[in-house]
Amino acid sequence: MGLRGKDLIEVRGLEPAEIELILDTAESMKEIASRAIKKVPTLRGKTVVNLFLEPSTRTRTSFEIAGKWLSADVVNVSGSASSVVKGETLMDTAKNLEAMSPDCVVIRHAMAGAPHMLARALRAAIINAGDGAHEHPTQALLDLLTIREKKGHLDGLKAAIVGDIAHSRVARSNIYGMRKMGMTVTVAGPPTLIPPGVEELGVKVAHRLEEAIRDVDVVMMLRLQQERMQAALIPSLREYARLWGLTLDRLAAAREDVLIMHPGPVNRGVELAPEVADSRYSVILDQVANGVAVRMALLYLLIGGKPAEAGA
Amino acid sequence: MGLRGKDLIEVRGLEPAEIELILDTAESMKEIASRAIKKVPTLRGKTVVNLFLEPSTRTRTSFEIAGKWLSADVVNVSGSASSVVKGETLMDTAKNLEAMSPDCVVIRHAMAGAPHMLARALRAAIINAGDGAHEHPTQALLDLLTIREKKGHLDGLKAAIVGDIAHSRVARSNIYGMRKMGMTVTVAGPPTLIPPGVEELGVKVAHRLEEAIRDVDVVMMLRLQQERMQAALIPSLREYARLWGLTLDRLAAAREDVLIMHPGPVNRGVELAPEVADSRYSVILDQVANGVAVRMALLYLLIGGKPAEAGA
Amino acid sequence: MGLRGKDLIEVRGLEPAEIELILDTAESMKEIASRAIKKVPTLRGKTVVNLFLEPSTRTRTSFEIAGKWLSADVVNVSGSASSVVKGETLMDTAKNLEAMSPDCVVIRHAMAGAPHMLARALRAAIINAGDGAHEHPTQALLDLLTIREKKGHLDGLKAAIVGDIAHSRVARSNIYGMRKMGMTVTVAGPPTLIPPGVEELGVKVAHRLEEAIRDVDVVMMLRLQQERMQAALIPSLREYARLWGLTLDRLAAAREDVLIMHPGPVNRGVELAPEVADSRYSVILDQVANGVAVRMALLYLLIGGKPAEAGA
Repeated sequence: MGLRGKDLIEVRGLEPAEIELILDTAESMKEIASRAIKKVPTLRGKTVVNLFLEPSTRTRTSFEIAGKWLSADVVNVSGSASSVVKGETLMDTAKNLEAMSPDCVVIRHAMAGAPHMLARALRAAIINAGDGAHEHPTQALLDLLTIREKKGHLDGLKAAIVGDIAHSRVARSNIYGMRKMGMTVTVAGPPTLIPPGVEELGVKVAHRLEEAIRDVDVVMMLRLQQERMQAALIPSLREYARLWGLTLDRLAAAREDVLIMHPGPVNRGVELAPEVADSRYSVILDQVANGVAVRMALLYLLIGGKPAEAGA
Repeated sequence: MGLRGKDLIEVRGLEPAEIELILDTAESMKEIASRAIKKVPTLRGKTVVNLFLEPSTRTRTSFEIAGKWLSADVVNVSGSASSVVKGETLMDTAKNLEAMSPDCVVIRHAMAGAPHMLARALRAAIINAGDGAHEHPTQALLDLLTIREKKGHLDGLKAAIVGDIAHSRVARSNIYGMRKMGMTVTVAGPPTLIPPGVEELGVKVAHRLEEAIRDVDVVMMLRLQQERMQAALIPSLREYARLWGLTLDRLAAAREDVLIMHPGPVNRGVELAPEVADSRYSVILDQVANGVAVRMALLYLLIGGKPAEAGA
Repeated sequence: MGLRGKDLIEVRGLEPAEIELILDTAESMKEIASRAIKKVPTLRGKTVVNLFLEPSTRTRTSFEIAGKWLSADVVNVSGSASSVVKGETLMDTAKNLEAMSPDCVVIRHAMAGAPHMLARALRAAIINAGDGAHEHPTQALLDLLTIREKKGHLDGLKAAIVGDIAHSRVARSNIYGMRKMGMTVTVAGPPTLIPPGVEELGVKVAHRLEEAIRDVDVVMMLRLQQERMQAALIPSLREYARLWGLTLDRLAAAREDVLIMHPGPVNRGVELAPEVADSRYSVILDQVANGVAVRMALLYLLIGGKPAEAGA
């Protein structure tokens, strides 16, 4: 069995069996990172274009390393250097890249829906590396891998996602993924940052941090974007940290075996106290390591098996 | 037989037999793009430096993919990141790169003549990826490959090149290449953008779009640079589009089997109506695909056969 | 015998035997640059991250080529593209990179001590590619290699280092390295750019250029950073060039077999007259070529022998 689609755009559209397949494949990829020779010939002669039209060091680096360990040719195209500068539309950029016969285009874009548009238009496999406030599926998949690794299973676990739920593609992808895998999800954050009707996604809403994190297996703290403050959605960083920042003190209300997660980069002292980020509860660096494994798995599943189609 | 020079700086200096050799080689390279494993060991252990001192996603990406498919090591050096920032002269930059023993330096530079200067000073093969308003030889070669592929031959064909002839390195390289291969060329555009004495290059000048495109095999529309408007060489984009933009309506005056070409990126709605860019006459994406093949051919012909000389 | 540490942070902490080992290894690496196939499988499956948080074309390119010729996977992370932009601390950036299991992180940073901090925190081998005004050890090692190559030995040679001694990491690393290898060092420059107590490093201070360069085997001219003038440490570029610029005229006072060195990029006409930079005394391009060899040697010595440890 493989994935049903040629692309990975949303967690929302994945079936639980597909998520299991990705996580199982990623687990077997993790072994490569521990070898003296971190290189397998699986994707030799395949070309992966990293089209990052929003800056992101870690996600781009993670995909680049994933591709290189699998022996793919990886070509980085970034926003500022791109001919998007010359006023070309995204679709023209994409069709032009496609004409160069890449097997996979990894795209990050500020506009929700951009990867979907590419997926419909291009023969190449498209991987969404984050699109606006829509989804960031590889982040959710690496989060699920981390939880499964630490807890041994996903079904029946309880998670709290805390922070700017309204604008977070990480939150959306995780809500879909966790729910599909049988987890219970509570979201929490300032009322201005909780989208109305979020309960329709199958989550509960908590109104205080303490209430959200009590008795859960996983606490996922979201990064607070400075822009939210400028938009007057929160009064100040200090006020936000006072009400919604996770400190060791507050963590006392949580279970002894709770996992603290964060998609990074962490605003230390804002959503997460440094002592919590570096505590034994934190699995933040496991998330990063699992990111490479999940991306290797997706590249393998999407472009590893089948022969490429003929170029234009 | 091979190329006569160690470099590719101008189409102007090429002999027709050399152009044929490049196109034939490119044709055989195209097959690689259609394979499941797009990788041959031809340039293993060769180093290609992409020195792009003017931004360009597609040309850089095209050279990078060309090099990687041939197994070369490709190193990108771009303008803003370069020590040009520290006030180093181009020649110092080049000599320093040369001291690192690259086999080939691909250079794009805003200054006409920069690649020529490097070619004289360096042992490495220099490929001109566009220098000021001088030449863009790989673009003309990929254009000729596309025309030959679609029409079966070049000799005796008629082409119109429309737009900013005065400032276009694409137009210059194509005029040289088309004339050498036995094609007839008509140029057309606003009088301010037609260089005086252009007829000396062996082309005719047309004063209206309709006149230029009637009865030709190929219409090559040039990108209008916004700078021209700022320099008051054209009254407005709207006015330019009205007089010189190719629409489906106007295309009715052309032959049924005309090829519409554009070096990209297209200003949709300015020099080319979207319906024309996406029409069955358009071979714009074939041009892009052929770009990789032509660059593979040049890398192969320039640095593929002979052993590299000893480093400094 | 190998290097004692897992990292290369300072020349200061190296033993003479370690320096000899690096230079000997680099010498054997130089042969690779002269081959038709510049590629050996030594570091296949090893991952090198080039973390350049200060711009630098040549040093980054030099490390990238060094890694690629040894068949390592090289991933570039640069300052502006990095999530340092998002306010992440250097340590978070580094720990995140580490979680992706690189074997080596090459770091350039404006802050003295940054590489040392990383070396303590990370399992990966850290190579200092220049940190603030502290050290630039690979530059000093390539300088020593160049001198040894040209003179046959280091012990007993006399060198003058001229320019902004106070702010130069190149000067500091060279002073340590030259002294360890038995060389005599004289420093010279405007009084505002000579650090008080510099004699404690085992060097003499000369107060005029002519005095410094008389009877030495090596003259190393430092790059004058424009910032120094803005900080009013020197009156003007012209005045600096008049007093401290090396011209052919002044060079007449030096020995017939003197070597002129410069870490590049040269401010032609400021610290070095063009005729001197391009003269037969100049070994500036040998320095660049030796840079690749020294970096290959360090990558080989630090990550070539031992199996990588398991990923997080």
